[in-house]
This record gives sequence, structure tokens and C-alpha cells, in this order.
Amino acid sequence: MSDMAARFAEIVGSAYLLTGDTIPEDYGHDEELTHPPQRPAYVAKPASAEEVSRLLMAASAHGVPVTARGSGSGLSGAARPRADGLLISFERMNAVLEVDTTNQVAVVQPGVTLTELDDATADTGLRYMVHPGELSSSVGGNVGTNAGGMRAVKYGVARHNVLGLQAVLPTGEIIRTGGKIAKVSTGYDLTQLIVGSEGTLALATEVIVKLHPRLDHSATVLAPFADFDQVMEAVPRVLATGLTPYILEYIDNMTMAALIHTQNLELGIPDQIRDSCEAYLVVALENRTADRLDEDVEKTGELLAELGAVDAYVLEGASARKLIEAREKAFWTLKAVGADDLIDTVVPRGSMPKFISTARGLAAAAGGAAVGCGHAGDGNVHLAILCKDPSARHRLITDILALAMELGGAISGEHGLGRAKTPYFVELEDPAKVALMRRIKQSFDPAGILNPDVVFAAESLP
Amino acid sequence: MSDMAARFAEIVGSAYLLTGDTIPEDYGHDEELTHPPQRPAYVAKPASAEEVSRLLMAASAHGVPVTARGSGSGLSGAARPRADGLLISFERMNAVLEVDTTNQVAVVQPGVTLTELDDATADTGLRYMVHPGELSSSVGGNVGTNAGGMRAVKYGVARHNVLGLQAVLPTGEIIRTGGKIAKVSTGYDLTQLIVGSEGTLALATEVIVKLHPRLDHSATVLAPFADFDQVMEAVPRVLATGLTPYILEYIDNMTMAALIHTQNLELGIPDQIRDSCEAYLVVALENRTADRLDEDVEKTGELLAELGAVDAYVLEGASARKLIEAREKAFWTLKAVGADDLIDTVVPRGSMPKFISTARGLAAAAGGAAVGCGHAGDGNVHLAILCKDPSARHRLITDILALAMELGGAISGEHGLGRAKTPYFVELEDPAKVALMRRIKQSFDPAGILNPDVVFAAESLP
Repeated sequence: MSDMAARFAEIVGSAYLLTGDTIPEDYGHDEELTHPPQRPAYVAKPASAEEVSRLLMAASAHGVPVTARGSGSGLSGAARPRADGLLISFERMNAVLEVDTTNQVAVVQPGVTLTELDDATADTGLRYMVHPGELSSSVGGNVGTNAGGMRAVKYGVARHNVLGLQAVLPTGEIIRTGGKIAKVSTGYDLTQLIVGSEGTLALATEVIVKLHPRLDHSATVLAPFADFDQVMEAVPRVLATGLTPYILEYIDNMTMAALIHTQNLELGIPDQIRDSCEAYLVVALENRTADRLDEDVEKTGELLAELGAVDAYVLEGASARKLIEAREKAFWTLKAVGADDLIDTVVPRGSMPKFISTARGLAAAAGGAAVGCGHAGDGNVHLAILCKDPSARHRLITDILALAMELGGAISGEHGLGRAKTPYFVELEDPAKVALMRRIKQSFDPAGILNPDVVFAAESLP
Repeated sequence: MSDMAARFAEIVGSAYLLTGDTIPEDYGHDEELTHPPQRPAYVAKPASAEEVSRLLMAASAHGVPVTARGSGSGLSGAARPRADGLLISFERMNAVLEVDTTNQVAVVQPGVTLTELDDATADTGLRYMVHPGELSSSVGGNVGTNAGGMRAVKYGVARHNVLGLQAVLPTGEIIRTGGKIAKVSTGYDLTQLIVGSEGTLALATEVIVKLHPRLDHSATVLAPFADFDQVMEAVPRVLATGLTPYILEYIDNMTMAALIHTQNLELGIPDQIRDSCEAYLVVALENRTADRLDEDVEKTGELLAELGAVDAYVLEGASARKLIEAREKAFWTLKAVGADDLIDTVVPRGSMPKFISTARGLAAAAGGAAVGCGHAGDGNVHLAILCKDPSARHRLITDILALAMELGGAISGEHGLGRAKTPYFVELEDPAKVALMRRIKQSFDPAGILNPDVVFAAESLP
């Protein structure tokens, strides 16, 4: 065992430090598609903030790159370690410390999965509403990527639901930010700076999340549209009503076909409608009372018909659940049908038609394709990029991301930059902003140890 | 005219640069209670981001302290300039640039007041929901202090409603952050870092704010409680129902008496109930339909009765509006009755009873009093501190703020630190966090020109 390994082992206990060939391959990757797994030099499994602090101080002192890992379900490679680096896995820090119904918050360790948190709050009538597709994802991972998901259109993304942190700075200080409080104007908002920083500024060791009341009644309306642009035009109209859907998704016809096929969905849509439709809108509603839900569903159906929907299918119980679950698994479906990369660009929702049609045109011109679905209410477009040649694909994706930025959007709406999108970010973003972010990075991490390939290209760090 | 003044005048035009005795006294203060007005050396009124950029570059080059001013309605002294400093007033940058109903956003210059923005959106069915008491406040000021107000319990504070900025760094770069998008995971969230930074990091020259649908029907329920703690215990119960009130305030009996007296409120509450009640809960509800509103009001009344309210008065139209307006003007009422200072501490809402009773005890022990009202749904307690002796008052406020922090809260929920609360912050906050914030400050403002008495004591800057 090397000196460095011995030092890490002394901190976490030798049972919780892995090195070399004893490291399972799983620790070498997340679900990002374009990089092969990379086994790190060390995997440490700390049990406390104090252990994390000592690990980071040791890594800072010796210039060892550090990557944090929650469940490894990320889609941008932010949890992919360096060959010479330390991977800190939060799998042992997986306790729900408190469910506080008076303040409507839960206090959890970063390794808690969304499924575990949902179970822990089930009896309270409250729920953590951030709901990315993968429910095995960890709360710590949600913090890292500023996770979103389908319910963001009503409840916001991780940023809006993380009220406070205990976090360890790479220099070893353990700080607390925010609290069981929904608002604060007391110095800079360190919570919000750390949320979405993908393990490059500080590592969260405790997370205070907001809980919302679980409403008892819900239903899902599925509306096929002959014309893609009509779907997009319907989105702001639905939102302007004040009906506050908790899910508002679009699914293009190719993606819907793949979902129906791979997941054996029975949606009751006649073949002739499926064949003639370019895209679908999914509108999920919820309410405290069954009567109000029924009224809202009816009103939504009428509105969608006015807006050009070919029909509107009200899905309840199992069939609604199956559709939503299939949508959540769209990533796996698109991966199975051969996606070469995945983007989750966000654009102003009014610019979605232009963005999607132009992106499709660019993909076709490159001899590939761009298909997908997305959080229409948020302008967050998930596109699977099918384009085998790596350099053609890089050019295509650069063009698509540049287009999103020209339209007032950004490279990623919820997956983060990770290793996969950092090169595009460095190429396309305003250099004044990248330079400012680099100075902020240095104010947290003077040794540059935290995830040095993410947000900034490693070589551009000091 | 000094060289420096000539330089600033050359940038904004001599008609828009004031110096010396020609500077009206109003520019020397905001509404903070404890400092006398301080006339700055220069007032500049730029018309564009480019002019702001040139002003800041000149100030950075010559070490001139710079304070930004919106409407001057702040309550913590963040807009109070330095004697040797430049005050940048955004009064000429007051255009509503765009109301975009498709993306449900408005794009405004920082000098736009909330009243002007409300007027500009009135016909669209949408509204900017941040609603601090003072509607002459500017959007730029809202950004600076992360303004809150009564509607935050449903719609969040400025932080949750500011989606993007154009901002000028003290080194002169003009950057754009965020956009007409509700979510983004693309590098660090510079928008959220600048929001609430009280003019110490960068100056906003354009703000993209979120708009929400205006719901047509609203009513206000006013419930007196014999016992203060019952009011506090009612708060989480109301929120857990999913009724989503858009206002949830408490008002203590002394404050209510002052509001009724100074504002000639007619609430229809019998004297004997007023005399026997310790505090009031104000619950405002809104809905798309009148029927649902009526049902919700009835349900709220029943719930409040169960929770121990002596009665529940449903206020509609003019009387509801008068009560809410009186509550908005509570600051002026408390100032008129002799408040010596004002705090707007935030604590976990479950800790409000302990916080308020302990704070009152501390005030009484110091020979003073602490009375007020607050955003009960947010745990944001506004206390007027009556205590004439400055050093006794300083000790009292230190004790009260330290108590709030021990309970997991923070010094300010929405007013910001300004000049008034910065000394307490520097004394009470974790030094590791203050040091980190100072490094962040330096990453934006290497010359230390932006509001050097705010967040950090001036002498602690480089």
C-alpha cells in the first residue's frame, strides 16, 4: 500500500479504502455515454463530515484529485474519477437524520437515495418533490448537478428545494449554510453556489431539503398533436391558466414509438392517430380533492382540443403510472436504440420549436439524427444524438449547443457539464464568465483538487 | 470640479453627475433607522450598462468606493454612500424592456419600481409576485437585498423570481447570467450569487424576472388568538393542508393596536376580543374560481377554529386590502411609535415561539421592548426594538441575533445586512464562512470598491 493510500486508510479505516484491482469497475463511471470507465487510484468510503474533511486536507496537501460519487447515476460524467485520483463514495453516509414536519424539511446525508427519502416521508403527508428519472439517484448527487426532472415545472429543481447544507471545503473547514428556513439575506448564498457546482467547490455532507404536501388525487392527460409546433405553442397557454400542472412534457413520435415498443405500453391510441402525429403532450394534474381534479382534467382536455390536439386521453392509475415511468426511463430506451450522446439543453420555452427543428436539420445534415423528449414547461430539451463518427458528432453537438446559447439558453438544464460537456462549455461560454468562475473556484479550492476536469479543463487550472 | 468628478462627468454627461452641495440630501440615506444621512462625494446617473462599466473601471482604477441606489427604500443601509464615494443612482435606467408572455418573464432595467412593473404587466394576466411592503422599491433593489415580502410563502423571494441578469463587474466586464429559463446546470449560478449580495459583487443593469398567472379571486381571513404560541402552532398546520395561502402573517397585539390606530382600520373585531388576544393570524387565499375560493375560505375558518382561534373574520374587497396595506406599512407605524432599530431575523418557523418569547424577555430585561409582526409562513420575524441607549441596544440586538442563529436561523430574512447589520454579522458569523465570502468578494472585486462597509467591515478588506 502506498503512503497516500495508508494515509487515506488511516482516516476512514482500512476496510473502507479500496485501491488498485480491488476497486470494482462500477466506481469507474457514471451513466455518461462517451467515456470508457476509468478506475481511480483510491476509493474511500467515509462515515462522517470529519472524515471527509481529513480526506480533503490530505488530498489538498498532496495534490491528489478528488471526485465525489453518490449513486453514480449522473449523465454527464461528473462522477467519473481520475486515474491518479481519490474517489469519495458517500454510500455509507446514507441516513435520513430527521423528518421535521413542523418546518416541512428533511435533513439527510448525501448518500440517501430518492427512494429511501420518499419512504422515510411517506407517512408524513409530505414529500421531496425533485424527481429526476432515476430514483436510485442520491440527494448528494441532486445537489451536485442541481437535478431537475418532470415535477420541476411546478416544484422547481434541486436549487429551489435545497435549503441548507453542511459542506466540507477542500481546505478542510466544515461549514453550515442556509438552514431550515425558506429565505435568507445574510451575506452570500453559499448554498446556491455549491448546488450545481458538480463537486468542484465543496462536498456536501448533510442536506436540508424542503418538503411539500402530498396531494391525494392525480391524473395524466396524453394529447397527440399532428404538428410539432402546435405542441410547443400549447405549453405557455396551459401554464397561463393557473391550472399548475406538476408535469408538462413533450415526447416526439420516434421516442414515443420506442417507449411503446421497449416498455410494452398500452395507451389506447389508435394506430392511425399514432401514424399521423408528430408529437405528444403529457399534462399531469393533482389536487387535494377528487372533484377539483376531475374539473381540472376536463378543462385541460377542452383547452388542448382548442389548441389543436387530435385527441386527449385521460390516463388513470396503472396506465398513467406506466407512461410516466416509461418517460422516466427514456434515457435507457434511447441508449438501447443506439444513442451516441445525450444533451439536455435548456432554451426559453418559446424558442423550443426553432431550436428543435434547427437541431434536427443540423443532425440530418451531419448524416445523423436528434430525437427525444423534454420538460416542455421548462424549455429543457433532451435529445439523443445519433451520429457515429466522433469528430462529426463533436461538430454537430457544438453547433447545437451554440444554437441553444444564441437563443438565450444554456448547455445543460439539469444534467450538468461533467466531463462530457465541459469541453463545449469552455469553447462556447463567454471567457469573462469562465474566468470569473475560475476565480470563484480558486477561492474555494486553492489546490485545485476537486473534480479538476469538470467546469474547467484541467490544464486551465493553476 | 475635481479630476475624478470630471472623469465621471465625461462618462455620464455633466447633467447627470452631481457633486458637493448640489447633491440632494435624499441621496445620503435609505430608510435604515440608526445612521444619519451621509452625502457622497459624487452621484452619477448612468443611462446604460456601458456607462456603468466605465464608471466602475474609473472607480476601480482610483480606489473610489461605489454604492448603488435603486429607490432608496432599503431598511438596512446598503444604499447609504460613503463620504468619499460615488453613488450610482439607477433612476434613469427605468425601462420595462419586454413583457414576454410566452416565456412568462419580464426584462427590466434595475430602476423600474414594482408599481411600474405591475402596471406594465396588468393587461397580460401575469404578475411579478415579489411584494415587499414598499412598492416604490426598485427591481434592482430587490436583486440587491433578495427582497421578500408577504407573498413569499407561496411565490418565494426575489431569489426564486430572478431568472437572469445583465451585470457589470467592478473590473468593467459586462456579463449575462441565466436567461428566460427556469433552470440551468451549466457552471456556477452567478445569478444567485449576485442576488442578495447588496451591491458588493457586481451591479445589475438588466433583470429577467419570472411572472406568474394572476388569479382572479382572493379573500383574507383574520383570526385572533388568545395565546401567542397557538398562532405559531397553527402555521405549519395551515401549510400542511395544501391550501397554499399566498399570505400567512402574524401580527402581535401591540402592533395590531398601532396599525388600527394610525391607519384607521375598521376590522369589525369587538373590543373585548381585541383586549383578550395576544396575536392575530392573517391568511390570504386566492383561486382561479370563486367557488373554490369560498370553499377554501370555509375550510380555513374551520381549521383555525380547531386550532384555537377565538374567531375568524373573512375580509373581502376594501377591508382586506386595507388590512394588507396597513401590514405593509407596519414599518412606518413602528417608526412613528418610536422604534429605535428594526430587525428581520429568520428562524425555522417551529422555533418562532421560543425565539419571540426569549427576544421579548431579553428586551424587557434591557429596559426596552421588542414588538412586531412577521411572515409567519417563512419564520421571518420583524421586530421593532425600542431601547434608547445605543450601547444597551447594541448588546440587546447582539443577544437577539445570536439567539436566532443558535436556533438555526440567520440575521436577516429579507432586508439584508447593509451597514446596519454588518457589524453584528462580522461578530457572530462563523469566521470560516466570512473568510470564504471575503475570498469570493475578491474574486469579483479585486480593488474592493463595491459597498465596502457592507457584508464585511471596511477595514477587513485588503
